[in-house]
Amino acid sequence: MDQIADFNEQDRDVIYRVIEARRDIRHFLPNQSVPKVVLERILHAAHNAPSVGLMQPWRFIRISDRDLRSKLRAEAEKERLKTADRLGARKEQFLKLKIEGIQDCAELLAMVIAPDDGTIVGRNTMPQEMAISSCACAIQNMWLAARVENIGLGWVSFYDQQKVAKLLKCPDNAYPLAILCLGPVLEFPPAPLMSITGWRDQKSFESVYYQNSYGEEPTKPVDC
Amino acid sequence: MDQIADFNEQDRDVIYRVIEARRDIRHFLPNQSVPKVVLERILHAAHNAPSVGLMQPWRFIRISDRDLRSKLRAEAEKERLKTADRLGARKEQFLKLKIEGIQDCAELLAMVIAPDDGTIVGRNTMPQEMAISSCACAIQNMWLAARVENIGLGWVSFYDQQKVAKLLKCPDNAYPLAILCLGPVLEFPPAPLMSITGWRDQKSFESVYYQNSYGEEPTKPVDC
Repeated sequence: MDQIADFNEQDRDVIYRVIEARRDIRHFLPNQSVPKVVLERILHAAHNAPSVGLMQPWRFIRISDRDLRSKLRAEAEKERLKTADRLGARKEQFLKLKIEGIQDCAELLAMVIAPDDGTIVGRNTMPQEMAISSCACAIQNMWLAARVENIGLGWVSFYDQQKVAKLLKCPDNAYPLAILCLGPVLEFPPAPLMSITGWRDQKSFESVYYQNSYGEEPTKPVDC
Repeated sequence: MDQIADFNEQDRDVIYRVIEARRDIRHFLPNQSVPKVVLERILHAAHNAPSVGLMQPWRFIRISDRDLRSKLRAEAEKERLKTADRLGARKEQFLKLKIEGIQDCAELLAMVIAPDDGTIVGRNTMPQEMAISSCACAIQNMWLAARVENIGLGWVSFYDQQKVAKLLKCPDNAYPLAILCLGPVLEFPPAPLMSITGWRDQKSFESVYYQNSYGEEPTKPVDC
């Protein structure tokens, strides 16, 4: 087989369909499970992500302890209310949105950025940014893997990192980047929930694509 | 069609094969081009990435100006030499590695993080991290899209951001996260170049996977 041309038109179609069908999920079916083999495929997809200087800064913590899950949910809930308080006129609308599925998802995971291992190559000018980027690429792999397994993934990003780091017994300078909710869902919405619920419009591709220099900024979204 | 179970075993196989076959590419075939329709498919895949609060902070700049390309390459080269100077005993080994393909790649792009639009939802505690993560997810989509199109993508992360921002005429507080080299390649290496060249070993998945709390850190890699 030609190693360069080893993907064909059908493969291409699959990748683009999965990329388009992927959603950030907050509504999970309760009392479900994810087969161990499926969870492992998804996590191996994450571990196959690129990383700057091959630093592989991602650490995965699977949370099977129900009490720990409740404590993590409480942290997210505190931040949800704090977020609401910052939203002024849109506070009530925001509080009606479901924004996380920590309680109901079949599998709960945390992705923690390891303490800096001193990797120099590729990180001379943006050390922290490159650790975060590597972890985010790994999560995007998980998202696509979950979608093709027909299960949902949601990235929860609102919590106090120090409190979550303590709950997960992280070493100094480790940094919880994501609480990840994974599991069977009732549906995959046809568009991002933020857009479907009228919270914010999506930008057109044309408005973010420039030639040779930074162009005109797309219209600023409403404050939210 | 059942909207939940709309991907099957064959689709799953494609996703995992592409994730495994994706590489960070630095060796491009010179004097090639990427058909406009292919470039657009890859960029639309990026634009279909998730983003926190639907902020879509990514801005793509296509660089067709050869003079601008040379200037960007010069910035990367300066940082390559600075990186080498920090590597002590491994300096000479590092200088032999090819670490970017800015000059030869068919298409050169920059991904710039837009000035903060004030998005609150999902960014109450990690505003900068979530902008970076959203952009990195978009780049991972590009990487997989490029791979399934049988062309290579390399993320160059070593340059002075302020100088690159100036070359790209970015507004204040816009932040160039990546210079992206895209185009036909001679080969896709079977493993990360950093590992093939003996620069650094990959970590096992088992060493980065914990249960309920942060576990034992994998062995620290050699200093590089």
